[in-house]
Amino acid sequence: MSNKSEYSEGDLRKTGMALKHDREWDYELDRIIEAVEERDAEKVGLQFPEGLKRRGPSVADDLRELLPDDVTILLSGQPCYGACDLDTYLMKRTDVFVHFGHSPMKNTDKVIYVPLFSNVDVFPIMEESLEELEVGDVGLVTTAQHMNRFEEMKEWLEDRGFTVHTRKGDDRLTHEGQVLGCNYASADIDADQVLYVGGGKFHPLGLAMEHPDKNVVIGDPVNNVVTVADTDKFLKQRYGAVHRAMDAEKWGVIFCTKIGQGRWEIAQDIIDENDDAYLITMDEVTPGRLRNFNMDAFVNTGCPRITTDDGPQFHKPMLTPGEYEIAIGNEPLDSLEFDTFHGTW
Amino acid sequence: MSNKSEYSEGDLRKTGMALKHDREWDYELDRIIEAVEERDAEKVGLQFPEGLKRRGPSVADDLRELLPDDVTILLSGQPCYGACDLDTYLMKRTDVFVHFGHSPMKNTDKVIYVPLFSNVDVFPIMEESLEELEVGDVGLVTTAQHMNRFEEMKEWLEDRGFTVHTRKGDDRLTHEGQVLGCNYASADIDADQVLYVGGGKFHPLGLAMEHPDKNVVIGDPVNNVVTVADTDKFLKQRYGAVHRAMDAEKWGVIFCTKIGQGRWEIAQDIIDENDDAYLITMDEVTPGRLRNFNMDAFVNTGCPRITTDDGPQFHKPMLTPGEYEIAIGNEPLDSLEFDTFHGTW
Repeated sequence: MSNKSEYSEGDLRKTGMALKHDREWDYELDRIIEAVEERDAEKVGLQFPEGLKRRGPSVADDLRELLPDDVTILLSGQPCYGACDLDTYLMKRTDVFVHFGHSPMKNTDKVIYVPLFSNVDVFPIMEESLEELEVGDVGLVTTAQHMNRFEEMKEWLEDRGFTVHTRKGDDRLTHEGQVLGCNYASADIDADQVLYVGGGKFHPLGLAMEHPDKNVVIGDPVNNVVTVADTDKFLKQRYGAVHRAMDAEKWGVIFCTKIGQGRWEIAQDIIDENDDAYLITMDEVTPGRLRNFNMDAFVNTGCPRITTDDGPQFHKPMLTPGEYEIAIGNEPLDSLEFDTFHGTW
Repeated sequence: MSNKSEYSEGDLRKTGMALKHDREWDYELDRIIEAVEERDAEKVGLQFPEGLKRRGPSVADDLRELLPDDVTILLSGQPCYGACDLDTYLMKRTDVFVHFGHSPMKNTDKVIYVPLFSNVDVFPIMEESLEELEVGDVGLVTTAQHMNRFEEMKEWLEDRGFTVHTRKGDDRLTHEGQVLGCNYASADIDADQVLYVGGGKFHPLGLAMEHPDKNVVIGDPVNNVVTVADTDKFLKQRYGAVHRAMDAEKWGVIFCTKIGQGRWEIAQDIIDENDDAYLITMDEVTPGRLRNFNMDAFVNTGCPRITTDDGPQFHKPMLTPGEYEIAIGNEPLDSLEFDTFHGTW
């Protein structure tokens, strides 16, 4: 039996970006240099996810060595947790803009996407995960970091007698078998069990919420542990937030201004229907920014991860749009679902 | 003798916006309604300073009462501490954009500035401040919140035998006698003593740093205390940061992307001169955002207030551009000055 308590404590913050293994990354400097030459660029902007920001200076050093002296390298200091976190300020003000570590949410010439693939060996943990799987039909999903091994993983399972079901998901996803924290369309396959290979607890929990009928096995090659997704504690935390919000007299409705996180219609609909709801716009949704507003509860139309992972840190209940509908009595309690995003930007 | 310890503990965060008195503000709704009608506006954006954000919902309520149903009110959730903190995202996406509580840094039709004047009586504290002043020439300065009483304050001093010197300062300042946290040009007058009437410690300390030859008397009507600016502890804190930064091998040079806080040339000059300096762009400069960068020290070309007020909260020394020049040995230790801004945006 796997260690369920590992992932059911409501602490979803240990994500795949906080990998413990020491790794070498391929920053694809050739592609960047080529773009600088083609565009006769003077300013190059580099954006790294939080866990890789400390690599920024040495990548800048390498580029300085290889590029003419009059090229200025700018590092984005904006928080970055996903492809939806594009630093549009830097993108608009640099001739070449590079986003590291995430796959494109939408194809655009404005951004050079450099995937950063993990060099962690996934097969030992897949071997262990067999204990939780029944030979037969199985879905296979992973995150952008392990995408480069996806075909090998599939073959590995097939070699062991599995019929592997995969799909690309929707427009928000670049690759076959890829999941995002806010999108599990790639797991919408014809099998009762899904193997998620990747670090962290957030993705597989979201997946299990989105597909409650499936057995979601988590092979985490980063923390070297196999578990089965258990949504009970997570659901209790969410129901707790919904219950606390039921008495709210004033609602703050957050519209996130990040390019990949805006859901204007959802926000506007809530405001139109509820006279006690106030629209608040912001890019980063943090406890500090909301504390100054005199609200009883918040509904976040931006990243569901902020709501669910950071929820307990906010001074007032923070709900997803679906949870809000339950709290105000428009939907029954048992309609609670994971909040997902399906468009691009 | 006044209580010097009040303002010399390095804690400069108690600002004029954190007033303790209960007050009524005039939000000038008529001007906003008129603009909505003139422009046939569908979206109205409201931006409040941090200390007044909790008033946002009731101002939104009042506007909803007075405006057609199809007008949407949006509250800015971006942090706001000054006229330099314009929420340009909201400004660009609303038909009418209102910035409360600060005077314009630059005249523009894009923004309706609604000053929020304090109704605190300033004369009792001015009476007390006479103990620290010598009858004769005196400079008089205040903040945007007390600007509506400036002429009265001047006459009050004149009635008591003073020759009051005032000036408008430079382009960054709207009013005669006004100071900003980053600009004390209005105190550049021909008198050995200056009376600052206003809340908080930051403005008068900056003023005393900028004009070390003058006796700066602080009449604080908010906390009801008269003090004389003493820059000693503040200077010790700053010298401490400079000393700790002297061994830095890697420098993070922060370029602030806020409309009123960008000093590109200063940032670019540092990068051009120092191979161990890396340009980092961001809007909010917070300890959390910098922790992920592997730097030994930072130089902030944005708001000096972040550097000086929040300095101790950053994990590595955070210097102003002038302090940086001292730390790398380009300028002598005794050249340390307060960092000021003199342009608009």
